[in-house]
Amino acid sequence: MKLAMVGLGRMGANIVRRLMRGGHECVVYDVNPDAIAALVAEGAIGATDYADLAAKLEGPRVIWLMIPAGLTGRVVDELSEVLQPGDIIIDGGNSNYRDDVRRAKALREKGLNYVDVGTSGGVFGLERGYCLMVGGPDEAFATITPILQTIAPGVGDVERTPGRTGELAPEELGFLHCGPSGAGHFVKMVHNGIEYGVMAALAEGLNLLENADAGIREAEHSAEVAPLEEPEYYQFDIDTPKVAELWRRGSVISSWLLDLTAAALQGNPTLQGLAGRVSDSGEGRWTVKAAVDVGVPVPVLAASLFERFASRDEDLFANQVLSAMRLQFGGHKELPAGDVLEAGGNKADHA
Amino acid sequence: MKLAMVGLGRMGANIVRRLMRGGHECVVYDVNPDAIAALVAEGAIGATDYADLAAKLEGPRVIWLMIPAGLTGRVVDELSEVLQPGDIIIDGGNSNYRDDVRRAKALREKGLNYVDVGTSGGVFGLERGYCLMVGGPDEAFATITPILQTIAPGVGDVERTPGRTGELAPEELGFLHCGPSGAGHFVKMVHNGIEYGVMAALAEGLNLLENADAGIREAEHSAEVAPLEEPEYYQFDIDTPKVAELWRRGSVISSWLLDLTAAALQGNPTLQGLAGRVSDSGEGRWTVKAAVDVGVPVPVLAASLFERFASRDEDLFANQVLSAMRLQFGGHKELPAGDVLEAGGNKADHA
Amino acid sequence: MKLAMVGLGRMGANIVRRLMRGGHECVVYDVNPDAIAALVAEGAIGATDYADLAAKLEGPRVIWLMIPAGLTGRVVDELSEVLQPGDIIIDGGNSNYRDDVRRAKALREKGLNYVDVGTSGGVFGLERGYCLMVGGPDEAFATITPILQTIAPGVGDVERTPGRTGELAPEELGFLHCGPSGAGHFVKMVHNGIEYGVMAALAEGLNLLENADAGIREAEHSAEVAPLEEPEYYQFDIDTPKVAELWRRGSVISSWLLDLTAAALQGNPTLQGLAGRVSDSGEGRWTVKAAVDVGVPVPVLAASLFERFASRDEDLFANQVLSAMRLQFGGHKELPAGDVLEAGGNKADHA
Amino acid sequence: MKLAMVGLGRMGANIVRRLMRGGHECVVYDVNPDAIAALVAEGAIGATDYADLAAKLEGPRVIWLMIPAGLTGRVVDELSEVLQPGDIIIDGGNSNYRDDVRRAKALREKGLNYVDVGTSGGVFGLERGYCLMVGGPDEAFATITPILQTIAPGVGDVERTPGRTGELAPEELGFLHCGPSGAGHFVKMVHNGIEYGVMAALAEGLNLLENADAGIREAEHSAEVAPLEEPEYYQFDIDTPKVAELWRRGSVISSWLLDLTAAALQGNPTLQGLAGRVSDSGEGRWTVKAAVDVGVPVPVLAASLFERFASRDEDLFANQVLSAMRLQFGGHKELPAGDVLEAGGNKADHA
Repeated sequence: MKLAMVGLGRMGANIVRRLMRGGHECVVYDVNPDAIAALVAEGAIGATDYADLAAKLEGPRVIWLMIPAGLTGRVVDELSEVLQPGDIIIDGGNSNYRDDVRRAKALREKGLNYVDVGTSGGVFGLERGYCLMVGGPDEAFATITPILQTIAPGVGDVERTPGRTGELAPEELGFLHCGPSGAGHFVKMVHNGIEYGVMAALAEGLNLLENADAGIREAEHSAEVAPLEEPEYYQFDIDTPKVAELWRRGSVISSWLLDLTAAALQGNPTLQGLAGRVSDSGEGRWTVKAAVDVGVPVPVLAASLFERFASRDEDLFANQVLSAMRLQFGGHKELPAGDVLEAGGNKADHA
Repeated sequence: MKLAMVGLGRMGANIVRRLMRGGHECVVYDVNPDAIAALVAEGAIGATDYADLAAKLEGPRVIWLMIPAGLTGRVVDELSEVLQPGDIIIDGGNSNYRDDVRRAKALREKGLNYVDVGTSGGVFGLERGYCLMVGGPDEAFATITPILQTIAPGVGDVERTPGRTGELAPEELGFLHCGPSGAGHFVKMVHNGIEYGVMAALAEGLNLLENADAGIREAEHSAEVAPLEEPEYYQFDIDTPKVAELWRRGSVISSWLLDLTAAALQGNPTLQGLAGRVSDSGEGRWTVKAAVDVGVPVPVLAASLFERFASRDEDLFANQVLSAMRLQFGGHKELPAGDVLEAGGNKADHA
Repeated sequence: MKLAMVGLGRMGANIVRRLMRGGHECVVYDVNPDAIAALVAEGAIGATDYADLAAKLEGPRVIWLMIPAGLTGRVVDELSEVLQPGDIIIDGGNSNYRDDVRRAKALREKGLNYVDVGTSGGVFGLERGYCLMVGGPDEAFATITPILQTIAPGVGDVERTPGRTGELAPEELGFLHCGPSGAGHFVKMVHNGIEYGVMAALAEGLNLLENADAGIREAEHSAEVAPLEEPEYYQFDIDTPKVAELWRRGSVISSWLLDLTAAALQGNPTLQGLAGRVSDSGEGRWTVKAAVDVGVPVPVLAASLFERFASRDEDLFANQVLSAMRLQFGGHKELPAGDVLEAGGNKADHA
Repeated sequence: MKLAMVGLGRMGANIVRRLMRGGHECVVYDVNPDAIAALVAEGAIGATDYADLAAKLEGPRVIWLMIPAGLTGRVVDELSEVLQPGDIIIDGGNSNYRDDVRRAKALREKGLNYVDVGTSGGVFGLERGYCLMVGGPDEAFATITPILQTIAPGVGDVERTPGRTGELAPEELGFLHCGPSGAGHFVKMVHNGIEYGVMAALAEGLNLLENADAGIREAEHSAEVAPLEEPEYYQFDIDTPKVAELWRRGSVISSWLLDLTAAALQGNPTLQGLAGRVSDSGEGRWTVKAAVDVGVPVPVLAASLFERFASRDEDLFANQVLSAMRLQFGGHKELPAGDVLEAGGNKADHA
């Protein structure tokens, strides 16, 4: 079928390529004319503005937005000016599902359909396909199903889940109608919240492996921390990159994130050059806030989010308060690394 | 090559089967004669006791133990009576790596080699192979490499990590010499610690999906908790089993644990019959204790462990203390489910 | 001075009593006429409705609301109909500070002043005084300062903070102008967030003390959990109520919440009759959400909130998922309490 | 009565002073002769070595050790050479209670009594008294009760717990016989574990207050983090030191640690000069490990410990792993502070 793509960054462009390979016709638009030209060279139809884009489609028009969430509101407003009742706007970006709920309601009053599609797959999606979590009206979902089928990974080489029989369900092909408007981004939000937790579990475990030689390094230990109590049990100089590779085969934690970790450590075994200031996007935060709203305990997901905040020193004032308290009640000075407690120092109230 | 297996429970028996398929000769022993008979019927050589087992092997003898960790100490002691210098005892069970360190040292004094093998793969290992994390002396590792190669999954259909070239390394075949005695179980311990975290991340996220309809259920809401503030954003009746299936293809969190989750939900979509009292084995605990010892922060791994404790009501007294405090400072009574705050009730110090 | 109180529940009535003792004149109103009558008998001036209440005050009128947060919006609207420019509405309840920000803006357009006062002190406030966190315009704060001084605890027997000299500052008397509208409830929100964390720290620690006898109880231990590894170190039958009393004197953790805990345990040493289903009000939730918004890590405050959710079994589906996964990969059945693993059972993949 | 003090650091010396004020006779010893001389000048009896110290006491001798935990084993051994059956060694330092259990057993075989005394009170103990948690044999406890009574705070100005009547119990005077050897340090360990949690709750909350102006600072915001979604709700420039002072009076979280926090912020409102690298002593770690051993969930106590680890950058490798993963799946580069995402950049898989 024919559709338009607005936003030709890496993901938008790759989805267009995947669609064209699948036999769909794509009208493309971006604020950057070079991005349009590049895809036109690959067979897409360029549009000069939203009106031109609308003119190059037939009703019901289908326009897929793949733009930063911060711009979606404005683009939807502008687009809605040139569209007709029955047309469909798809937000494939990373909007907060709450915006979807509001936006869908406003567009519905104009007779326009709004479909939110949470899209996972990263830079590998062009070849691997994108996992698609869809929210919106039934009819619109039915209309765009051919597109979704092309963008999604399909059944691939993933083994069928025991107990499933008969024709393949959409979710087995990598796309799913999750519910009304907002449901797609809600499910994507939770997906990313889980992702934070899984990433943190791997990162914490690998950090422990890296420190399995603490007993060997004990000699250099400062008095800043309590001395290692049983150094004889921490004498392992583990090759962490090899372990990450090992776990890819046959272990219970084999996963795509582990594959990526093994690849990262293969290329850079000591991870030099990475400062470890870990960014976060909105989804991890929204997940925790949604869980708090509905009263679902998510200690793991929240801890993984807070680790990222702390990695960027957002915990600084709290830590200064702790040091200040310790100074008050115990006269504990902060020790510079490498310092040694004076002999005879008594630490009975050290806390 | 020829080796003996002691302990013919599900995992021991399946490893024997996998070894025999790979052309190895297996002498087998268990306290349960039926377990021996079953494998003899499949081609194994039965042993009547440890002396008989030793007699049916040639030096350097290789004996693989696949028994509950609590029995390992006694069995190693008894076996060491009938073995000769140079022989190799492999502990493939779930011992604490600290026991390995001590045991290896004691056996070394008798000239015996001790190799600890952390084994992951579960009930699927017979077909899929087992991921093997090995600790022990270089020479012993070299001797048993043919066995390890057979038990491990091999390269399988896992894509090669970008940047790896040339001959396949052992870790690409699913086994790795992680270091001296104890290193194998140390790495397995951390593996399981990570597994707790990954499982918890998935479980918490799915729980949030299950409660995305809190706004619909709001009418039934009791005063036990604060009322849902924006019910319009929690109107999704998500089909959680379908979402688990969906995420298996193309998503960033695709993983073997997700495959299993999808399978579990396929068979039992509401998980009825499961009380949710989640057991834990030693590894998750040892991981947290090791991290505390060496000063590595593991908030996610620890939170996942504590969730299991709490699932078994080990938090009861703490929760009673909280209710008792609230009763003291605010006169807050615990509200039975379904109760409604009296009109006019003031909750200004509700905490 | 003269003011009105709307809402004569426990806290509203006690604040009126404290104000009258301090020489202020109080007009009182409640939907419940008995509550009005009770305070009239103690010297207050009863009002029959908002118009009557307004008529019994002179401008600038001061009306203090002490009502459930859910009713505040409606009452403010109704009151604003009968007030004059320059009058002051004080919300002393537990509103979300976001409502204050919105409400203050709307009232300002009518020339009315809105002051939010976070009020802490619980059932002890009548005698002990209430800690008051105030947000709103400077002028309105100045106007109501005499009332705040009376309601607040005053300097009491709390030692002066070293370094403070000269005249006592308002914060040393127990009230503080924290900033513009919303700032008072924001600070109160954080206060309650901290309170959750402090309560949880005490509760967790006391739970550990209660279980210091795990080595004695080990014999009854089921296979549901890993066996206690060093029972000889858990042979203490601690008298937890006595320890709570002990810590009140001279220890670093002496605090009012500890005083209350000691009182609760004195009256009910085993806390029988408390089911440990711990309610939460909004502030703990809002604190976590605000921290997530501004990127401040609050792992302790969040964990204390999630413990309360879990105490009410809001973790059920997550725990069922965990059990379901374990069943999948390891064939682990959930063990009923008291069950014992079969001899010969292999737990190598127990996770 | 007469006793000896070994270890004349700040706490040991102050306890001696408190004992002498209470009419007890103190023999004193330290490796530092100046420390001895100082106390002799105040009325204590100096000892030149352990033999001399023993000679200056009568049986049953009572020797109080106030030395770093790392030295206790050696000093106890040396002392036990010069003591007689029935004599009592008190360890008032910060030993791991497990060492007490072992040490008490060894000394009992020589007829010596070992008493462990967890001591809380910090630099304020000289005036305020020390909270004493005691483990050891009944008879030894009875013998040293007069000393404990003098060192403890006594009833002070703490209000009696409602329901307590009659003669004051030891715990109301600030000392308690908690159980057999080890019980004193076990209770002190849990006390410090709680202390970590309470400190963290306060520190996290104050950090949130400090960031209540995030909406004002939003303009400077980099793309490293998700943009603040509702800046209008974070416009408060809170005076955190004043709030800490405020909460000391009448609030539910009034506590000694809050008093100290207010004092610290009074002296240094921005906490400048403190790097926020927070040390930890053994007790917080032992608390978490003990809780893990007995299966008690302590998410708050553990989180407060891990925050300290992270404050010292022990989370570095984990955070590097996270950044490395993000680079793999999303091509996300770590953004230096101040950087801005390029227009048109698509962040759909940002996690």
